[in-house]
Amino acid sequence: MKNHQYAIADYNLKIVKKELRDIHFLDDSTDDIDNPAELLKTFLLKSFLDQQSLAIRGQKIAGMLASFEENALTFLDKNAPISKIGFYNIALQLLHFEVGEDFLIDNPITKMKTLNLPVANVHDNMNLYDTMTAWYLLLNTHNKYGTTFIDDLASKGYFAQNLNSFKKPLIFNGKAMPVYDTNNLIREVVYVEAAQDNDHDGNLDLLKTEIIRPKESNKNKVPVIFTASPYNQGTNDKDGEQLTHNVNVSLKHKEPNNYSYSDIEHHSKKEKLPEPRPIEGKTRKAEQTLDREQSYTLNDYFLARGFAVVYSAGIGTYESDGFRTTGDDDETLSATAVIEWLNGKRTAFTNKTDNNQIEAYWSNGSIAMSGRSYLGTLQIAAATTGVDGLKTCIAEAAISNWYDYYRENGLVLAPGGFQGEDADVLAAETYSLKQQATEFYKNKDAWEKQLSSITDGQDRNTGNYNEFWDARNYLKNAKNIKADMFLIHGLNDDNVKPKNVEQIWNAIKPLNINKKLILHQGKHIYINAFQSIDFTDMINLWLTYKLLDVDNNADELIPNVLIQDNVKAETWNAFGEWENPDDVKTLHPSNNNELTDEFDHGRKEFKDQLSVNDFEKYCLDYKQWRDDLVLDHENNPLTNNRVIFKTTPAKEDFTIDGKVKISLNASSTQNYGMLSCMLVDYGEAYRLTESPKNLGHRINEGYLWREDSLREFKIQNKKTPYKEIAEGHINMQNRKNSYHVDDMEANEFYDMELELQPTFYHVPAGHQLGLIIFATDFENTIRGNQDLKYRISLAETDIKLPIRKQ
Amino acid sequence: MKNHQYAIADYNLKIVKKELRDIHFLDDSTDDIDNPAELLKTFLLKSFLDQQSLAIRGQKIAGMLASFEENALTFLDKNAPISKIGFYNIALQLLHFEVGEDFLIDNPITKMKTLNLPVANVHDNMNLYDTMTAWYLLLNTHNKYGTTFIDDLASKGYFAQNLNSFKKPLIFNGKAMPVYDTNNLIREVVYVEAAQDNDHDGNLDLLKTEIIRPKESNKNKVPVIFTASPYNQGTNDKDGEQLTHNVNVSLKHKEPNNYSYSDIEHHSKKEKLPEPRPIEGKTRKAEQTLDREQSYTLNDYFLARGFAVVYSAGIGTYESDGFRTTGDDDETLSATAVIEWLNGKRTAFTNKTDNNQIEAYWSNGSIAMSGRSYLGTLQIAAATTGVDGLKTCIAEAAISNWYDYYRENGLVLAPGGFQGEDADVLAAETYSLKQQATEFYKNKDAWEKQLSSITDGQDRNTGNYNEFWDARNYLKNAKNIKADMFLIHGLNDDNVKPKNVEQIWNAIKPLNINKKLILHQGKHIYINAFQSIDFTDMINLWLTYKLLDVDNNADELIPNVLIQDNVKAETWNAFGEWENPDDVKTLHPSNNNELTDEFDHGRKEFKDQLSVNDFEKYCLDYKQWRDDLVLDHENNPLTNNRVIFKTTPAKEDFTIDGKVKISLNASSTQNYGMLSCMLVDYGEAYRLTESPKNLGHRINEGYLWREDSLREFKIQNKKTPYKEIAEGHINMQNRKNSYHVDDMEANEFYDMELELQPTFYHVPAGHQLGLIIFATDFENTIRGNQDLKYRISLAETDIKLPIRKQ
Repeated sequence: MKNHQYAIADYNLKIVKKELRDIHFLDDSTDDIDNPAELLKTFLLKSFLDQQSLAIRGQKIAGMLASFEENALTFLDKNAPISKIGFYNIALQLLHFEVGEDFLIDNPITKMKTLNLPVANVHDNMNLYDTMTAWYLLLNTHNKYGTTFIDDLASKGYFAQNLNSFKKPLIFNGKAMPVYDTNNLIREVVYVEAAQDNDHDGNLDLLKTEIIRPKESNKNKVPVIFTASPYNQGTNDKDGEQLTHNVNVSLKHKEPNNYSYSDIEHHSKKEKLPEPRPIEGKTRKAEQTLDREQSYTLNDYFLARGFAVVYSAGIGTYESDGFRTTGDDDETLSATAVIEWLNGKRTAFTNKTDNNQIEAYWSNGSIAMSGRSYLGTLQIAAATTGVDGLKTCIAEAAISNWYDYYRENGLVLAPGGFQGEDADVLAAETYSLKQQATEFYKNKDAWEKQLSSITDGQDRNTGNYNEFWDARNYLKNAKNIKADMFLIHGLNDDNVKPKNVEQIWNAIKPLNINKKLILHQGKHIYINAFQSIDFTDMINLWLTYKLLDVDNNADELIPNVLIQDNVKAETWNAFGEWENPDDVKTLHPSNNNELTDEFDHGRKEFKDQLSVNDFEKYCLDYKQWRDDLVLDHENNPLTNNRVIFKTTPAKEDFTIDGKVKISLNASSTQNYGMLSCMLVDYGEAYRLTESPKNLGHRINEGYLWREDSLREFKIQNKKTPYKEIAEGHINMQNRKNSYHVDDMEANEFYDMELELQPTFYHVPAGHQLGLIIFATDFENTIRGNQDLKYRISLAETDIKLPIRKQ
Repeated sequence: MKNHQYAIADYNLKIVKKELRDIHFLDDSTDDIDNPAELLKTFLLKSFLDQQSLAIRGQKIAGMLASFEENALTFLDKNAPISKIGFYNIALQLLHFEVGEDFLIDNPITKMKTLNLPVANVHDNMNLYDTMTAWYLLLNTHNKYGTTFIDDLASKGYFAQNLNSFKKPLIFNGKAMPVYDTNNLIREVVYVEAAQDNDHDGNLDLLKTEIIRPKESNKNKVPVIFTASPYNQGTNDKDGEQLTHNVNVSLKHKEPNNYSYSDIEHHSKKEKLPEPRPIEGKTRKAEQTLDREQSYTLNDYFLARGFAVVYSAGIGTYESDGFRTTGDDDETLSATAVIEWLNGKRTAFTNKTDNNQIEAYWSNGSIAMSGRSYLGTLQIAAATTGVDGLKTCIAEAAISNWYDYYRENGLVLAPGGFQGEDADVLAAETYSLKQQATEFYKNKDAWEKQLSSITDGQDRNTGNYNEFWDARNYLKNAKNIKADMFLIHGLNDDNVKPKNVEQIWNAIKPLNINKKLILHQGKHIYINAFQSIDFTDMINLWLTYKLLDVDNNADELIPNVLIQDNVKAETWNAFGEWENPDDVKTLHPSNNNELTDEFDHGRKEFKDQLSVNDFEKYCLDYKQWRDDLVLDHENNPLTNNRVIFKTTPAKEDFTIDGKVKISLNASSTQNYGMLSCMLVDYGEAYRLTESPKNLGHRINEGYLWREDSLREFKIQNKKTPYKEIAEGHINMQNRKNSYHVDDMEANEFYDMELELQPTFYHVPAGHQLGLIIFATDFENTIRGNQDLKYRISLAETDIKLPIRKQ
């Protein structure tokens, strides 16, 4: 384990004394203690719960060693001075490190430092204030299982044994503590009246909104975390499967056009909306409750800490009105409607018929959004409206432009693992309104029409950017963002690809908001249960500041850009910026398949077609396809289906920071063609696991409350010969951009430029970089298995690597 | 989905009326209703929670279709007669089946039957009593997600909205209902004084025992489910890894002996025990609490239903006394000590020092045990003592004889997936007492001595059954069992192999107890979250009978033997017995590698040694080893390392029911040798997944209480060429039995008989059976990679298949 904690707020003795009092480690009874050992014993006794007997607590203290000679109880009962070593011997045991197994007694400070755990700046013989200070820091230190000691105590009942005695909210070291009764949360449903009539039934759409909030919020207003999740009312998986498109179709010549952006620009249509419903009554009493919600464990964590959590699935979902649209303005309006209601600026009703208004009287009007993937996407969508009340987004693996999710440079391009998915498939999958048979049959025809319009609009025939996609490009409105943005993305996310986070990150750079970026080594995952990084604490610090107005220095403590290393496990590095290379290095492909500083003349060619057998095999086994694409071996069916150019082994470590650009001069044997490029790290090495490993340890989000499982990327136990760094794809007729279609002749050479997905990749010394140029990408592009040959002119082809020195 | 429900108790109109009243679907207000439609509407309104408004509930009822023309609300508001079809249209929607997606409206009865859901025997035009009866049955019917409708309602808050208004315990259709407040369970720890001084410190061992019980148990005694889990106080995984034995060691000649059983029989030593502690006080107030326990979801389910759940880890675990012994009498005593305390026959204290007695005053004295693997093993151990109060065991994947876990026929044989594990490794892993540094260092020398004595006793040198193993063979005492036994085992469990369940099942056959057996297609797994089988309901029926004395006919309703089919998904068949073949078919190996009815003369030979490369590859990749062992292909390194004999394709389906026996006449080129036999089902087929698939649906064990994930074995989406049916291994010097060592000369032929693991395997028509004879089993045996050749004399070799016709 290697710990990385960024969310420990600054403290001094005054803060230590005040806050230890707030959480009851100091109180009137401790005021008389003038002996450090007695004080530490009191702290230990308190940490083993007042509700347990002194005998039991003594038994537990005596179970720890203070030194090789003495157990902690004997040690403290002497009332002799506490050595810093003795303190940290005990401290490590409190943090669940085992003597013998994890550390050597009398050598705890070294161990703390090896683990990257903070050690208090106190005297070797600790005085009373040293003891308080060291204890305070210890409470904020991560234990062996990735949670702070105070959260660990909380999960054992420290606060729960006497919930009513604590201030609410209770802030400790800048973070909200779990002092709310999770057994008695209020669970209610309201129907928000949105400014849309998406199903054109002459009534504004009512959107089912689920609220979970502490009962204290009836008296004292609380901040809100809102997760807009189109999935959380159920999904129609069969419908999705049935609609999934056949991707084994031919690439075709596209009719050239001369489009400029204004030709395909989407302009929001201002339709005349129905009148709002008349308000026929007003109440504070909801009529509907909800059972177990589809939750996100980070939200659960905040429920125990006094935040309300709100879920709403939007138009076209179970018990709401309207249809799914996959990312257009109407879905954005569904999300902002809920925020407006939470901020007192929109009406909600207790049911769908009686026009009985219910206000979010319990909301303090400060709202954050949370969630990953589509749930993150709707955060970007809502933020770009500049809606009031939305203070911050914690957007994980979010789409910033739907074209970058389903298309690339004039090609249909599936999210990794979901070949054949498209905007219409996702709309059908999330149309959970279908679960109510009556509603479904009432709206069947209109829904089928709506679905067809998505199928038409997405235009799988050309793969071009068009008015449909422009209506689903949030980047256009990024300038409107007022909320502080916390963006999290996996550098290996092949579902929502890194370009999505890169573009929104760049778009908000000039804005006068606070912004943070975390790039991890995962694919399309959550990172709130990782052992090596205090993500959850950081979000707590952030939200305690943004929503509760506690001045905890969150903006400065949390690094602007935090990136997980891809070579060393459990290693995170803070940076000022992403895409900030020291140099851009240009390399050229050579006739003998090298990437070098020198130009070379000549051409390379590769075909695209495969035997039916090989083709079918790869359609079912992407891993095999990828291995064969990247590696050379006997009887490799792909030997002539790609060209590979490699650098010499790197003399020293370096980092590729940003977007690799490939300039290509290429021809196809037909008047159409597509090119794919993949940048590969070649070198036998023990690499990180693709997915984080479940470490078999439970994370408690509070006391006997919801749970998560501790996870971490570990080094694999086998060497692997390569790792993909980034890839890109282009339709040879979209040389100018994704909507302008160029003409093309068979066997003519054309210049084009292709940007690979942005990255931050640590290339270790001894490894080679490889550029692979090919056509069909079995996991992502259409797969026509056509009789095509491609040629690359080497002299006019190069690769530009943004390099950051280590 | 295909449903199998065995736990629906018999009912008649009288029961229907009484029990619908008990659960408040009928009450004084419904007594006046004389119209079936009005009654059904009332039922529906109630099932959508009294705490929700009529408008909301109406909205939900109206969301369902009663026919193509009418929604359920309109349909019922007409107060016209209810058609059975209308009822089941609504019923299927209540069970979460979707109109259109899952069934066609107006065709619900057919759908119910296809899904194997029970349809009430009522008139096509339902009268008042029909409505009650059909509703009653519906409440007991499994929904799309594998739980009964009443459990589904409970998870939505049906009981929770008014917990105090229900009888406790509340029995509905023979099963206990979740009417207990899981938010306010009492959680306490006591120290049971066991009749053992395992650490020889002059004091009886105190065993930490964790109790979770409903607060109602303070007033009314409740039954107890006890799980003895040596893991649940933590494990020492690093110690386990370090102790794990090197299995790449040579097989050696064993000195012959002439042992009979009496030479190695274990006799319990009656040591003089220290006096019990003097009782210095008595209390009902525990001094210690526990936070989140390591639970088993089946126990969680029963906590909501008024059962207390008790966990105790036994000697040598965290906060208990003593050392780990891996399965000897002392561990059994640890388990029975807790049962005795629960049954009022043993003392427990509130802490380890003050001798303050605390009784299980809240226990009704009726105890069941639950758990899998080691947790199941300790059930067998406890049951074989005949301890009072233990009414039944729900033993899943339990060891009945530790020799059958770590050894086989004179060979060291690892549990699948755990090469190099042995009794000492397990002892070290479970010695969680180590987590208290003070206790660990105090006992370090004694513990190391104890661990060495296990290492010596287990005797990896010979692999023979000896006094050490005889002390760990529960079968010897099976005759003492008084508890009713519910045994569950995976036919593909290669960790605790099926022989363990088979032997205890056979041993209890003559006993006058009730016994049930479930054999599933899993490996070493729990089956309480399966979609196709009502396992949890069956256990509820069983425990409601055994521990609450409710006469629900559980013994008759639950089949004696229930076996999951290995060919068809979601298919369970009930039988009177296991190992009940119609015929035993003997087949002989032939020179041309067939298995036929005819004798053949000649010999076959195979070697055991591999190139270092191949050897090392297989040590790391058992799957590859297994594929190469079973399949023929070019450049297969194992081609000469085994012989394979195959039957002709089966003309019709049949079942192998029980133990396949192989008579072998064989020689080795050294004066030692081992033989392995594997029976294989050859045939390209879509087979069940090896592990159950997570279906992505949450199972709620109560209302906002603990959760599990719905699982099921599905048919794989790729054909596989084979599946292993059973295997066996023998040391050629243990031809008589596992403790008698025969002499052996190089190149001499010897007769021996080998039983494969017992099975129940459905062989489909067209498939071939294959017998593979080989030596080193990379996943299970030691791996000496020695220069050995084996010869098989065909005429004196045969295989006997116990056949049950389909």
